[in-house]
Amino acid sequence: MANPPAASVPALPPAAAPGDPLARVDTPSLVLDLDAFESNLRQMQAWADRHGVALRPHAKAHKCPEIARRQLALGARGICCQKVSEALPFVAAGIDDVHISNEVVGAAKLALLAQLARAARVSVCVDDAGNLADISAAMARAQAQVEVLVELDVGQGRCGVPDAAAAVALARQAQALPGVTFGGLQAYHGSVQHVRGHAERAAVAARAAQAAAECARQLRAAGIPCDRITGAGTGSAEFDAASGVYTEMQAGSYAFMDGDYGANAWSGPLAFRHSLFLLATVMSMPAPGRAVVDAGLKSTTIECGLPQVAGGAGLQYAAANDEHGVLKVAADAALRLGDTLLLIPAHVDPTFNLHDSLVAYRDGVVEGVWDISARGLSR
Amino acid sequence: MANPPAASVPALPPAAAPGDPLARVDTPSLVLDLDAFESNLRQMQAWADRHGVALRPHAKAHKCPEIARRQLALGARGICCQKVSEALPFVAAGIDDVHISNEVVGAAKLALLAQLARAARVSVCVDDAGNLADISAAMARAQAQVEVLVELDVGQGRCGVPDAAAAVALARQAQALPGVTFGGLQAYHGSVQHVRGHAERAAVAARAAQAAAECARQLRAAGIPCDRITGAGTGSAEFDAASGVYTEMQAGSYAFMDGDYGANAWSGPLAFRHSLFLLATVMSMPAPGRAVVDAGLKSTTIECGLPQVAGGAGLQYAAANDEHGVLKVAADAALRLGDTLLLIPAHVDPTFNLHDSLVAYRDGVVEGVWDISARGLSR
Repeated sequence: MANPPAASVPALPPAAAPGDPLARVDTPSLVLDLDAFESNLRQMQAWADRHGVALRPHAKAHKCPEIARRQLALGARGICCQKVSEALPFVAAGIDDVHISNEVVGAAKLALLAQLARAARVSVCVDDAGNLADISAAMARAQAQVEVLVELDVGQGRCGVPDAAAAVALARQAQALPGVTFGGLQAYHGSVQHVRGHAERAAVAARAAQAAAECARQLRAAGIPCDRITGAGTGSAEFDAASGVYTEMQAGSYAFMDGDYGANAWSGPLAFRHSLFLLATVMSMPAPGRAVVDAGLKSTTIECGLPQVAGGAGLQYAAANDEHGVLKVAADAALRLGDTLLLIPAHVDPTFNLHDSLVAYRDGVVEGVWDISARGLSR
Repeated sequence: MANPPAASVPALPPAAAPGDPLARVDTPSLVLDLDAFESNLRQMQAWADRHGVALRPHAKAHKCPEIARRQLALGARGICCQKVSEALPFVAAGIDDVHISNEVVGAAKLALLAQLARAARVSVCVDDAGNLADISAAMARAQAQVEVLVELDVGQGRCGVPDAAAAVALARQAQALPGVTFGGLQAYHGSVQHVRGHAERAAVAARAAQAAAECARQLRAAGIPCDRITGAGTGSAEFDAASGVYTEMQAGSYAFMDGDYGANAWSGPLAFRHSLFLLATVMSMPAPGRAVVDAGLKSTTIECGLPQVAGGAGLQYAAANDEHGVLKVAADAALRLGDTLLLIPAHVDPTFNLHDSLVAYRDGVVEGVWDISARGLSR
């Protein structure tokens, strides 16, 4: 049963190599249309530049240092990460300015944060006095220095202090503690990003910006400088950049788009294109009207909906199992066993987190295979 | 922006080491209660033995060679994998009997399958004449031999030939081709597994078994031996083992259980316990009635529902974001920032697929950290 194998165990070859045609990439594989991707990067950077706001793209979206390098090369200020461990491969790749857009709790994580803060410029969020004291102690112990941003809940109802008074109290505490400097506010509103209507989204974003502005006003009234206000996702960046309140935008999905963001109304000046796809193979056509592809829940997540078939007239991805996607096939759709399809994931971030590499292509030809080095780094 | 870091970049320490108390394991981490796990393994093996049916646990559930080894040590016949690439780390770990419970389509995959078939005893499913010819050609080219099982659709409506006549035709074709031997039938019904009522589940399973039996009868009537009928998941194993039809059971989740299987009625002789949990830390308590844990969509998938808090009276996991879980906290629940909680994932298989290692513990103390070596291997 568990004897040494009879012949040597094969190694898994790479899914693709530069020069391969896209249709010959092994599946399921996450693939990136470089023309659309680069257009998205340029568009968001130009929007930030036009409004004098820094762009600090969220690396939790892609977890890929090569992508971060390309964002920085176009003018991004640095990156965001959501976890301390997630930041490690980016700093190892030479990216030296990271905002941890999240609270960090626990001795092991704070020790790692302190080491990270000795290797790069690092900021982190706080919403609790005890946690702030713990951060200070961990930094002092490691002779490190970290910038803290007080997270203000501007409507999402997740983390963050509820009001300006609490923010002022935490800022004062930070000013008095060793190892930490008060840097400003994080005022990120996650749920505004997917408000579908353009005007409705603008209205919710405006209320969030107003809350952030009022908090900054009260900080300044208390004699505390508040030079940095970070927030803004792909869905609210248009409004946040123009608000005059935010100094920094954390958007991440704009580089790729997904089914969820695609369902927003984009009637404003920003128009991002789908650049990220899941390449899948038709592996069974057992009955008229039905086909099965080799990409299911382990290749793309479905909490924001099922993937869509790009350019797939007459093809509907109707159900996802672990390793299967069941397609409804219209009678006139030309589809054969072994055909490959491009699927549009419904949610970029957790889909990247399923893959170890990303196949970058242009005009149907592979240009490179990039490591998704921070995949799985959630600690 | 992308300069060499000022100090050396820290490495991520392991989440745990043997001897650590469970509460000190870094989070989020997938953890396994060994007592419950071993009880589940023994129970299913005993049920299979009692009915003279082979147990071939599905390794897609856990992707962990150490777990497969323990299943084999208790009497399992071999393992199932869902993809060719998934099988590689198991065969490398010395497991030499693998059923690929799926169709395999495409030249790269068939070449790998042929290599695998030279290193271990391998069987694979077919539901298409052209694919069967391709398998035969790939095997002959590599001087390999693979057993093919015709997949019969017994009610799921996914892959598999629709009827016995089609199965007989494929079996005849297999008998005539080099490189392949006809082994029997796969008759797995995925959707019966989660029919909630015990009697209703029994009825659906009985119809599937009947369809498999009728197909085997027609094969034998055509002079084709059908010695192997494989199928059965955790939810139907009770009935399938006793059916007299199945010779082999593919169940996987029974070793762990999850929220989805926990919602089934288990009024029969099998009573599996939750052994798999996601350890999470309370990282923000910003407002009365609300707490936030550090485990979200990147630590557990939610297509079958949100995770439950094990033993968490007054605590309800109410929303999952990428790296956050938002909990509703009853007024009398004692919960503090930094506390760790055990969450019950709603769906075992894709949750294992998010993690690189599994922390095995007994009585609150870590015994080992096991590699989830096939994580991400979906090709």
